[in-house]
Amino acid sequence: MTTTSTDTSYDIARERSDLLHQTIDDPEALRRAGLRVLTGDRPTGELHVGHYLASLRNRVALQDKGVESFVIIADYQVITDRDVVGRIRDHTRGLVLDYLAAGIDPSRTTIFAHSAVPALNQLMLPFLSLVTNAELRRNPTVKDELAATDGRPLSGLLLTYPVHQAADILFCHGNVVPVGKDQLPHVEQTRVIARRFNRRYAGGQVVFREPEALLSDAPLLLGTDGHKMSKSRGNTVRLGASADETARLIRGARTDGERRITFEPDRRPEVSSLITTAALFLGEDEAVLAERIGDGGAAELKRVVTEAVNDGLADHRSRRAQLAQDPAYLDQVLREGNSRANEVAEHTLDQVREVMGMTY
Amino acid sequence: MTTTSTDTSYDIARERSDLLHQTIDDPEALRRAGLRVLTGDRPTGELHVGHYLASLRNRVALQDKGVESFVIIADYQVITDRDVVGRIRDHTRGLVLDYLAAGIDPSRTTIFAHSAVPALNQLMLPFLSLVTNAELRRNPTVKDELAATDGRPLSGLLLTYPVHQAADILFCHGNVVPVGKDQLPHVEQTRVIARRFNRRYAGGQVVFREPEALLSDAPLLLGTDGHKMSKSRGNTVRLGASADETARLIRGARTDGERRITFEPDRRPEVSSLITTAALFLGEDEAVLAERIGDGGAAELKRVVTEAVNDGLADHRSRRAQLAQDPAYLDQVLREGNSRANEVAEHTLDQVREVMGMTY
Repeated sequence: MTTTSTDTSYDIARERSDLLHQTIDDPEALRRAGLRVLTGDRPTGELHVGHYLASLRNRVALQDKGVESFVIIADYQVITDRDVVGRIRDHTRGLVLDYLAAGIDPSRTTIFAHSAVPALNQLMLPFLSLVTNAELRRNPTVKDELAATDGRPLSGLLLTYPVHQAADILFCHGNVVPVGKDQLPHVEQTRVIARRFNRRYAGGQVVFREPEALLSDAPLLLGTDGHKMSKSRGNTVRLGASADETARLIRGARTDGERRITFEPDRRPEVSSLITTAALFLGEDEAVLAERIGDGGAAELKRVVTEAVNDGLADHRSRRAQLAQDPAYLDQVLREGNSRANEVAEHTLDQVREVMGMTY
Repeated sequence: MTTTSTDTSYDIARERSDLLHQTIDDPEALRRAGLRVLTGDRPTGELHVGHYLASLRNRVALQDKGVESFVIIADYQVITDRDVVGRIRDHTRGLVLDYLAAGIDPSRTTIFAHSAVPALNQLMLPFLSLVTNAELRRNPTVKDELAATDGRPLSGLLLTYPVHQAADILFCHGNVVPVGKDQLPHVEQTRVIARRFNRRYAGGQVVFREPEALLSDAPLLLGTDGHKMSKSRGNTVRLGASADETARLIRGARTDGERRITFEPDRRPEVSSLITTAALFLGEDEAVLAERIGDGGAAELKRVVTEAVNDGLADHRSRRAQLAQDPAYLDQVLREGNSRANEVAEHTLDQVREVMGMTY
């Protein structure tokens, strides 16, 4: 029964997401819709090819279609599943670097750090009153993250993670959240918080619109070792890697014993993931690309992938190298983003205080 | 076993508290100790005689001995156990009124509202990472509060209540917290958070001193109906009540069938609570006072109590009435307190960001 209910809510989310995609692709409808996107990353390491293909490109596309965007560098989320913050300042600067190199324009998109916006974080308090402990405990993402931490006890920060996310989204009245299927429960929790806030504290007045999930069709790419791509496993091509490093990493990628290259994600996950990577950069159909490589085998496949990645990232990398020369500019972008995020957050917090009667 | 362990930790807290009282009473030691007190109230209604005798008088005494003090009006705590904020603005202004009337001096003591200090609230995030869900669940106060809410599901806000309290105390580097025995677990949780923060995020550097509980010997006063005093039961004398209302309320107070007045808290709780009330205002010994009333019976007891309360509160009430004429001044006191609390909180948050490497 649970499966049915989840599938139904997935179908509904899918349908709403498809409508949203239509709106975004229609300039006139988009202008009327007043969309505002919230996305972000945890500063735990350098962004890689998987991030580029699954989210970074899409963010730039949304921005360039005219959707107002906020990108959060979720530094407090680094400590939801570990005890050390690590080289958080470097990682944060690295994120800004890749955002700008990818084409995120700080004059149109607000890039900011979670820890730099106190008024956003204050929203945690009223929002925490709107969820029950039981709801937090059964959030699938909290469960999954907990399972992934090897018996580490559930911290208060991980438990309340869905509530931070709600604050991250609602502080800027974000109403579009690009997510994968596995993150739908977070968006759903945010919708519930928005709805309850409006009803309980604002007498039904719509202070917060319920955000919609923008589901991406981004396929799950595997790392070069056949496991999930991960910044810390070193099994993926960092965006900042050189062309040579890229070639070396792809040359060492795991494939399988079959000579002929075919696109069969279920039966041949490693080979298919490499095909998908190249296909996404080249804008080609995966089956067609596989056919074209055919008996060239793994060596030819890797040559094609390496070329596709290096060509596809060439502009990104040259802009990245250039921007890296100017750390003061990166800091300035983040400072200005933080300042804009604070303005927006303070305005929202004022609305929240006003409807709750907490104005003194 | 649990009892033993609790008793031991109570004994230790008691000992530390006694030392603290000695320090406070020795002007030279006090100057060296750098004490800072955090106390506060929830703005759920008007303060009454119980608050006056158990906390308000002590706060003024601490302030007048030269202990730097912060008084938090804990408005977000109103919604830990209820869905509506109520007349929160009036109640908040009422608290300021009683603080000032009681002798709290806003030039020496910072009076502020919880919701007005975003940087304080942001401390929730790093602090939440330092506690486990299990610790929050077994906090006795969370359990008690939950039990008192008639099967209402445990909200995220109530669950994380010990962490807000830690933020309330540590934001101003408060190191003395006047509490009753039942609130010791909160102070203990705050000590744990301070300790873990220093160790985990500050490499052992003491960013936060562990606060000490200042245990009060304030007896538990009963309401006029023999139940616990409660703003919402109407079973207690509001500080703002008139002398006539006070007389009427005490005249209607529950006593017992015995003619002769004696001080026997266990056997005669209602009569003894009335004696304690008068004794505290008069600065007399309870047994001596009971003896003096003796065969005068309940009528004489009530006359004595009424006179003691009305005389004891006369100055407070006349200052209160005078201050109530000037709501703009009350607002200004709170605004200035908020502003001072924000300054302090921002400074602390900067320290926290600095040691965590979150400076961009």
